Amino acid sequence: MAEYEYSIVVIVAKFEVLVYTCLERGNTMKLLLDAYGLDAGPSVVLNAGAKAKSNLQVDVGIIGPKSIEDEATSKGLEFVHAAEEISMNEPNPAFAIRQKRDSSISKGLRLVKDGAYHGFVSGGSTGALLAGGMTIVGRIPGIKRAALMAPFPAKNRTVFMLDIGANADCTSDLLYSFAVMAEKYLKTIVGIPHPSIMLLNNGTEEHKGSELTQETFKLLSQSQLNFKGNIEARYVFEGDCDIIVTDGFTGNIFLKTLEGVFQHFNFLLKDVAKNSWTAKIGLGLMYKPMKIKFASLDASKHGGVPLLGLKKTVVKAHGSSDMNAFYNSIVVAKKTIESGMIDELEKSFSKED
Amino acid sequence: MAEYEYSIVVIVAKFEVLVYTCLERGNTMKLLLDAYGLDAGPSVVLNAGAKAKSNLQVDVGIIGPKSIEDEATSKGLEFVHAAEEISMNEPNPAFAIRQKRDSSISKGLRLVKDGAYHGFVSGGSTGALLAGGMTIVGRIPGIKRAALMAPFPAKNRTVFMLDIGANADCTSDLLYSFAVMAEKYLKTIVGIPHPSIMLLNNGTEEHKGSELTQETFKLLSQSQLNFKGNIEARYVFEGDCDIIVTDGFTGNIFLKTLEGVFQHFNFLLKDVAKNSWTAKIGLGLMYKPMKIKFASLDASKHGGVPLLGLKKTVVKAHGSSDMNAFYNSIVVAKKTIESGMIDELEKSFSKED
Repeated sequence: MAEYEYSIVVIVAKFEVLVYTCLERGNTMKLLLDAYGLDAGPSVVLNAGAKAKSNLQVDVGIIGPKSIEDEATSKGLEFVHAAEEISMNEPNPAFAIRQKRDSSISKGLRLVKDGAYHGFVSGGSTGALLAGGMTIVGRIPGIKRAALMAPFPAKNRTVFMLDIGANADCTSDLLYSFAVMAEKYLKTIVGIPHPSIMLLNNGTEEHKGSELTQETFKLLSQSQLNFKGNIEARYVFEGDCDIIVTDGFTGNIFLKTLEGVFQHFNFLLKDVAKNSWTAKIGLGLMYKPMKIKFASLDASKHGGVPLLGLKKTVVKAHGSSDMNAFYNSIVVAKKTIESGMIDELEKSFSKED
Repeated sequence: MAEYEYSIVVIVAKFEVLVYTCLERGNTMKLLLDAYGLDAGPSVVLNAGAKAKSNLQVDVGIIGPKSIEDEATSKGLEFVHAAEEISMNEPNPAFAIRQKRDSSISKGLRLVKDGAYHGFVSGGSTGALLAGGMTIVGRIPGIKRAALMAPFPAKNRTVFMLDIGANADCTSDLLYSFAVMAEKYLKTIVGIPHPSIMLLNNGTEEHKGSELTQETFKLLSQSQLNFKGNIEARYVFEGDCDIIVTDGFTGNIFLKTLEGVFQHFNFLLKDVAKNSWTAKIGLGLMYKPMKIKFASLDASKHGGVPLLGLKKTVVKAHGSSDMNAFYNSIVVAKKTIESGMIDELEKSFSKED
């Protein structure tokens, strides 16, 4: 009888360990990819998903229109049907998230929240991802707003700027939390032990800037972070630091000015070539290597960035991602999940509360 | 007796007309130029002053160090001694204006305020010019802050952006007054009858942006101005409007991002040429026409812009002005004075008060 009872206990205990192992460590990491939202269409997502499944040893689900179901399953990918898309130009993304419950972003984020997938990668509407991230997935306690970060390839290193568009109106507390999140990201995902942080401002001296930057300067100076002071927008590409903190309005102006100037540069080069035959030949000779070089500046080639501050891993890929860029976004999602960064942020912000 | 009295009356009347003419219309317009503050040194100012005296039929005074007195007078220019310079890197320009009373900017602005000169042109510290402009020269009643405007050569026209750095923290009322001032400037000085105005924002839709841009959008929409809505930073060079309104912090970020990207572009081109011999030959062939073309983008070549909102004409020239650019700044000062723009702004804002 005693032996019998003992056996039961052992069996139950073994079963518990088995269940624990399955739930906690997972059989395989499962990532959900949004087939909507890319300029290049769903084939990029399908191909990147197949590559990730084979190279990264992850299980991949594709959420998208019925029309791609066969191709997804033929590639060994799970298929989740989402009948709707939230357009990039959606005027009110927060409203769309609630209304379009069968959209890939809304449904995809619910699946991630419920634990059916470990992370979500989407090239769709940033506004909808953020709104859905905040309302469906939820913020890490102690973090007031999620932030969007972009990598800029500067002279000697990649500089990460945040926020680049999630929060138009910010407080100094918010900017401080962005700095903390970015620092954790660079430490755990990018592998930089002591990332240096600067504050985007209209001058380098401490007293320069708006009320917001002056207050934030004080907070960052008093913190344990590796804060190196103010940086002017003209020096971002010099690569003097790892992280640049700014509010979402200013970050967005920076990003879009950059895009605009590059387009204008292209226009000017062609205009020069039109009016001078030597320049025309010159441009012809330069064109290919120049194009390759400048492509390295294109944010869409660098993979996505996670929405920092959420309880689960949500990676925003660039809408103009090609297959490699989207694949890189999947790599970012996998690294983010494996790193335990979200747990670390939870610990860090719960301490501060 | 009656005839005699009549003659007296006629003589007195004629004398009064003569006095009126001298005082009101002035003998000749008198402009004061700051010999300090240019990267290229005072010779640029002296030469531009001499050219202005002969081409524009204006009287020219030069305010600067004793060492240039002889050259100034030998060129037929008045000389005013200013022993001090307020440096471009002055951490507290408002304080410097009060402390360095014998600096060219402080003394020069006092001379303009007192009517000894009709206008002041300086390539010196923007902060000091603004602080001195506000405290010494004074604002037009009804205008709360002076603003700084910069011309950007877009595809089909020059786009004027303000504020580009005078006021880091702005209200919607302030942005609205910037729009009114810029409109008057373009109408009277640049000669555009109905300048179109857009608001720099992080999206084109009405609801986009920060609280500030949303409020300003409403004010501009309800006004009589030719307001065409929001513009994203990436479309500035498309030249879709004449005036872009923004706060001084954001305008400064735009301006400096532009500078930074151009410098980085230059670096990238050289880097491309270093690693490819075809690109090296290509760059050699393109270099000269490209340099000429890109110089057209250089704000310093476009002459200065007046500090909008002051009671007198104060033109800020770019610190890197060459002789022609500084001469163009003098032309801007002359046009501003002749146009009666300041009177028009006074009328316009006194009505609104």
